[in-house]
Amino acid sequence: MLMRMYDVIAAKRDGRELTTEEIYDFIKGYVNGEIPDYQASALLMAIFFRGMSEREILDLTMSMAKSGDMVDLSAIEGIKVDKHSTGGVGDKTTLIVAPIAAACGVKVAKMSGRGLGHTGGTVDKLESIPGFRTDLNREEFFDVVRKTGISVIGQSGNLTPADKKLYALRDVTATVESIPLIASSIMSKKIAAGSDCILLDVKTGSGAFMKTVDDSIALAEEMVKLGENAGRRTCALITDMDVPLGKNIGNNLEVIEAVKTLKGEGPEDLTHEILYLAANMLELADKGSEEECLAMARRAIDDGSAMNKLAEMVGAQGGDTGVIFDTDKFEKAKHSYVVKAPQSGYIASMDTEGCGIASVMLGAGRETLNSPINMSAGIIIEAKTGDRVEAGDTLAVLYADDEGLFASAEKKYLSSIRFAAEPVKRNPLLYAKVSANGTKRMV
Amino acid sequence: MLMRMYDVIAAKRDGRELTTEEIYDFIKGYVNGEIPDYQASALLMAIFFRGMSEREILDLTMSMAKSGDMVDLSAIEGIKVDKHSTGGVGDKTTLIVAPIAAACGVKVAKMSGRGLGHTGGTVDKLESIPGFRTDLNREEFFDVVRKTGISVIGQSGNLTPADKKLYALRDVTATVESIPLIASSIMSKKIAAGSDCILLDVKTGSGAFMKTVDDSIALAEEMVKLGENAGRRTCALITDMDVPLGKNIGNNLEVIEAVKTLKGEGPEDLTHEILYLAANMLELADKGSEEECLAMARRAIDDGSAMNKLAEMVGAQGGDTGVIFDTDKFEKAKHSYVVKAPQSGYIASMDTEGCGIASVMLGAGRETLNSPINMSAGIIIEAKTGDRVEAGDTLAVLYADDEGLFASAEKKYLSSIRFAAEPVKRNPLLYAKVSANGTKRMV
Repeated sequence: MLMRMYDVIAAKRDGRELTTEEIYDFIKGYVNGEIPDYQASALLMAIFFRGMSEREILDLTMSMAKSGDMVDLSAIEGIKVDKHSTGGVGDKTTLIVAPIAAACGVKVAKMSGRGLGHTGGTVDKLESIPGFRTDLNREEFFDVVRKTGISVIGQSGNLTPADKKLYALRDVTATVESIPLIASSIMSKKIAAGSDCILLDVKTGSGAFMKTVDDSIALAEEMVKLGENAGRRTCALITDMDVPLGKNIGNNLEVIEAVKTLKGEGPEDLTHEILYLAANMLELADKGSEEECLAMARRAIDDGSAMNKLAEMVGAQGGDTGVIFDTDKFEKAKHSYVVKAPQSGYIASMDTEGCGIASVMLGAGRETLNSPINMSAGIIIEAKTGDRVEAGDTLAVLYADDEGLFASAEKKYLSSIRFAAEPVKRNPLLYAKVSANGTKRMV
Repeated sequence: MLMRMYDVIAAKRDGRELTTEEIYDFIKGYVNGEIPDYQASALLMAIFFRGMSEREILDLTMSMAKSGDMVDLSAIEGIKVDKHSTGGVGDKTTLIVAPIAAACGVKVAKMSGRGLGHTGGTVDKLESIPGFRTDLNREEFFDVVRKTGISVIGQSGNLTPADKKLYALRDVTATVESIPLIASSIMSKKIAAGSDCILLDVKTGSGAFMKTVDDSIALAEEMVKLGENAGRRTCALITDMDVPLGKNIGNNLEVIEAVKTLKGEGPEDLTHEILYLAANMLELADKGSEEECLAMARRAIDDGSAMNKLAEMVGAQGGDTGVIFDTDKFEKAKHSYVVKAPQSGYIASMDTEGCGIASVMLGAGRETLNSPINMSAGIIIEAKTGDRVEAGDTLAVLYADDEGLFASAEKKYLSSIRFAAEPVKRNPLLYAKVSANGTKRMV
């Protein structure tokens, strides 16, 4: 196997296309430990430089998807729609769009991840709801979806083990930033997770993986092709992550904002974005044109049906629906601290990653996979890019159980904000839509 | 350390120059085990694609040289000249040129390697002389050089441990073929070995590491710069390895041919090449112009002084000088086998690597570092590229202790020979000379 793997590395290094068999053998050998990390990382770096053909990326994606369980959702009636975000700060959209989609008649049987580094994870946020179980077994998961139309759980043990192992290696060998590797990593999980349709929310900007719109579109196009080639209807929206989404960062703080938004009282940017995301999930499931789906999504908020769906799922997964209907009942952080504007002016930009790190410093996130997290810690932002503030105005309120954390978190938060004397134009929320029909730029 | 190494990999991946400190920290961390193989191999692959600046290559070379013992030869009077061949088939030149150089008054205190794969090693060849010790300790080594002017031993335990570890990794991760990595690997060993002057014999062609003259010149130029920047007078000859050098391949067979050549009875190609190599060692040590040094070298053969130097060294290192003065006394293989020309015609080309592998199949080489080798096995070539043969003529004689090995070795040997109906032009023996004064192409 060693010599054969040598040939595979040399082939990719020299710009030759790997065969389907070579890619499957690599994934199989790497997962079962026959291929050592040092050969895998050399191949990953060669892929970083040489790229992969469409066929190679599809083979890599499918070989990783098939490296573990392939979830079969056919026992659940109806069209199942999944949604994936490439991750951002304050990104609580799943908590809002999944209930809207379910309220409009599509099935959402979704596995989500935990937060790591500066971005949060849906599973952590859901677990801030007292009693909420994200560890349902297959039968319980299916039952909740059948009964309520929606269930969100943590990733099961043996979903895409190849991706887990490769991702951990890429993370320490500077081979993360490669479109073929990012696209195959995300899509292998989505394909293994079994839904019929996949909506991708590709974030772009300072808080995102992809820093430019062009890179985000390139990644989205790759993923849409992969999904479609694997027989899943796939669509991607390129959305802004140059400022945190909404106002709240932190686990139960984000659930609170999600509930507010489902009640029609959410911040404008978040409300706008979740309507588009939900509408595109509905459009993928053939519920109508994008316009019609937007109207449906709006109705699901206005008539309270989306809010009810969230409560149904929370109840079905053992969570306390009391806190959902009255978010004042959520546990609160022991201390709060007001970050004041050090000067007058317009907020010119926010380093979104920096805001996320400030939230982690308050206890809301984890720096390593096993760090404990504080469910009520975080940040509520009061002024965002484009806003005018006077010196001493409240920029944000920090929440933590330990007052000693405020000083460094405030410093980090302030260092991620730049001020300008002149008015500043806000970024658009949506940059582009990528589907099987092509790429439509919106700005 | 892990995070810092991540940054080093990412910097090289993105085409940034590594600092001196980053390179030294990498080598130190890799040798002491703090940096894992999988990070090192990712960096090596990034270097393969991005290359290195002059300064980076020098830092890498010196950090590897200093990773273990730096041999100090100053206790030996006179100018010490080292010689390194990038390796080839039938390359017994060290056994000939080192005695010539010593006979002409320069000191040769040389550490050599063992054979691996299709190429032989000087240490193995010397050990085919009964009683010859290549494992002298430092004091014995210096004593032999002081007394006779020449000693060749095996590499001591702690010479460039960084290169040993990195080379083993490159060998299994397809990161060998990189000029910065090849040049720093060779030159770190030569610089650590302590000689004042270094002659490099860079082989080019089917049996060599570098397959084209241009690549060989590029490698030579890099190594000469490295040597000169490290304060060693350095020169390189680009020599042909598109046919095996001389007639004999195999350990004591090559010693026999070396003795013959020192007696003035060697094959023309080998004699021509060793005169140039020896002359360039003398020129590096300021013994005169290349022309004058060529004349000195010729004289050392004609007057028997070079032959006597070999015998002196053999005696001083415990070897049986009887076999040197009468090579018929060398142990012979139990069986021989004549390979006959399957057709009439001109030999158009020989795959030199294939000839080397045939010799290994007969028992003359090792496939892994711990394989035993047969000192009297090998090949004596009777017809080489350019020669005219009739069907049934002897192409070569194979030697082995086990008759069962002949069939597959003959097949391998014949498969590496191509015939042509028309006369074929022989390659030149010398292609270029690279020194501090620049590169002089000879063809």
